[in-house]
Amino acid sequence: MEIRILSLLVDNNPGVTSRVSGLFSRRGYNIESFSSGVTTDERYTRITIVCSGDAIILEQIIKQLEKLVDVRDIKVLNPADSVIRELCLVKVSAKPEQRQGIISIVDIFRANIVDVSNDSLVIEMTGAKTKVDAFIKLMMDYEILELARTGVTGLSRGSKDVVYL
Amino acid sequence: MEIRILSLLVDNNPGVTSRVSGLFSRRGYNIESFSSGVTTDERYTRITIVCSGDAIILEQIIKQLEKLVDVRDIKVLNPADSVIRELCLVKVSAKPEQRQGIISIVDIFRANIVDVSNDSLVIEMTGAKTKVDAFIKLMMDYEILELARTGVTGLSRGSKDVVYL
Repeated sequence: MEIRILSLLVDNNPGVTSRVSGLFSRRGYNIESFSSGVTTDERYTRITIVCSGDAIILEQIIKQLEKLVDVRDIKVLNPADSVIRELCLVKVSAKPEQRQGIISIVDIFRANIVDVSNDSLVIEMTGAKTKVDAFIKLMMDYEILELARTGVTGLSRGSKDVVYL
Repeated sequence: MEIRILSLLVDNNPGVTSRVSGLFSRRGYNIESFSSGVTTDERYTRITIVCSGDAIILEQIIKQLEKLVDVRDIKVLNPADSVIRELCLVKVSAKPEQRQGIISIVDIFRANIVDVSNDSLVIEMTGAKTKVDAFIKLMMDYEILELARTGVTGLSRGSKDVVYL
């Protein structure tokens, strides 16, 4: 059971999200995170999927993805050779006397406070999944009111094997 | 044609991504970005969807989402009252003599350079969609080799109407 990160370049058609994710669910393969956004060329969308499970089934899923007409390119990102990042927004309960403690942690993680109210803070934090996980764990000492993660996205390092936009 | 941001809290089941996105595609409703990640409670995933299209059809989609057993909560985020962020990774072609020009723009946008090679840079940039769009537009003066966006995620400001984790 290994965590795999797939980076797909697909046509920006209605239904492509559902066609791609459907291939995973039909095999009961759990998607840990799924993120999609258009590229500089509006005809294409990049989808990054983090999943874990049986390697043989994943090979089968990749083969089926290759057969979808919407799918232009598939890469399995190697964490050692890629920049992999995730964005997380956390809303924590913060009474005035608690704020300084939270700000200290925010500084250590080079996170940003993006909203303050009388009794809460919203923190924006970017990093590798493990860094985001560590930050959330520390924030659990305070009361986490809401949390939103984008799911990871990634690019291979350097300019070798750039096959698409 | 208005852009709408939906924030869903769903059960972390296999297939939930495909069930949710399928409701949009069956009506030919295009999803501009889709991002999902687990919350602090591993039983739940938060999905943020940006879509645009007919308001009446969207109302119907929301009603059908409410009927899905996986869907715990649905919020339509009001941009004026929410923190909405997106993460973008851009790989640009950068010869040594071009680097300084790129670094200046990176500084203005408070972006970060996360990888350097002999002829390319990878830049990490976080912000509202419009800020990310503006940054990408500037980077087009250089050659964009690859681009990955997470799609937006968001939380409402303040601590009122927090109905879920």
